[in-house]
Amino acid sequence: MKEGNGMASLEDFKKLDIKIAEIETVTPHPNADKLYVLGIRVGQIRKTLVAGIRLHYGEAELKGKKIVVIDNLEPAMIRGVESQGMLLAASDGEHLTLVVPERPIADGAKVK
Amino acid sequence: MKEGNGMASLEDFKKLDIKIAEIETVTPHPNADKLYVLGIRVGQIRKTLVAGIRLHYGEAELKGKKIVVIDNLEPAMIRGVESQGMLLAASDGEHLTLVVPERPIADGAKVK
Repeated sequence: MKEGNGMASLEDFKKLDIKIAEIETVTPHPNADKLYVLGIRVGQIRKTLVAGIRLHYGEAELKGKKIVVIDNLEPAMIRGVESQGMLLAASDGEHLTLVVPERPIADGAKVK
Repeated sequence: MKEGNGMASLEDFKKLDIKIAEIETVTPHPNADKLYVLGIRVGQIRKTLVAGIRLHYGEAELKGKKIVVIDNLEPAMIRGVESQGMLLAASDGEHLTLVVPERPIADGAKVK
């Protein structure tokens, strides 16, 4: 990730479509022991994310959780599974935490 | 904000330096009744944000809260106060919620 040498413009930020999503299904990635394959709902859309949070979150803990995703990221094949976006998580190198909405809000809500 | 017509690349995402910040001070904006001026700490750095969350969050509720900020956004004057970044919040048009780390983590931690 970027280490903050450059500044970003508001236009740079607006390129990203950041939204609230709800995790509906959680499956261990078949080819990678640190990855999950997550089925998420973003408003009317259902999609798949590959996320490297398996060492930090259990499956049951993730189901039904509201998270924050980059919804318009170009799809990428990750160890043979297509990821159609990316979730936001914070890490200090040792600990990892998901980034979540503090209050109840519908999936599909815009983050800005 | 963007309505998701275009896709974003991983490079687009990496332009943004997204971090955990802690709110240290909360002051009503002198010239706008929907805005706060927030003093935040991002690791070793202290800076000022102007945020339009005054109708949704009380001052006491915000003090000490960990939030998520775009740390390298170009500074902008907002009603006469310089904002040195932007916080992330989700809105469905009626409700607004801050986006926060779900588990304890130090301010300054990278979000990716």
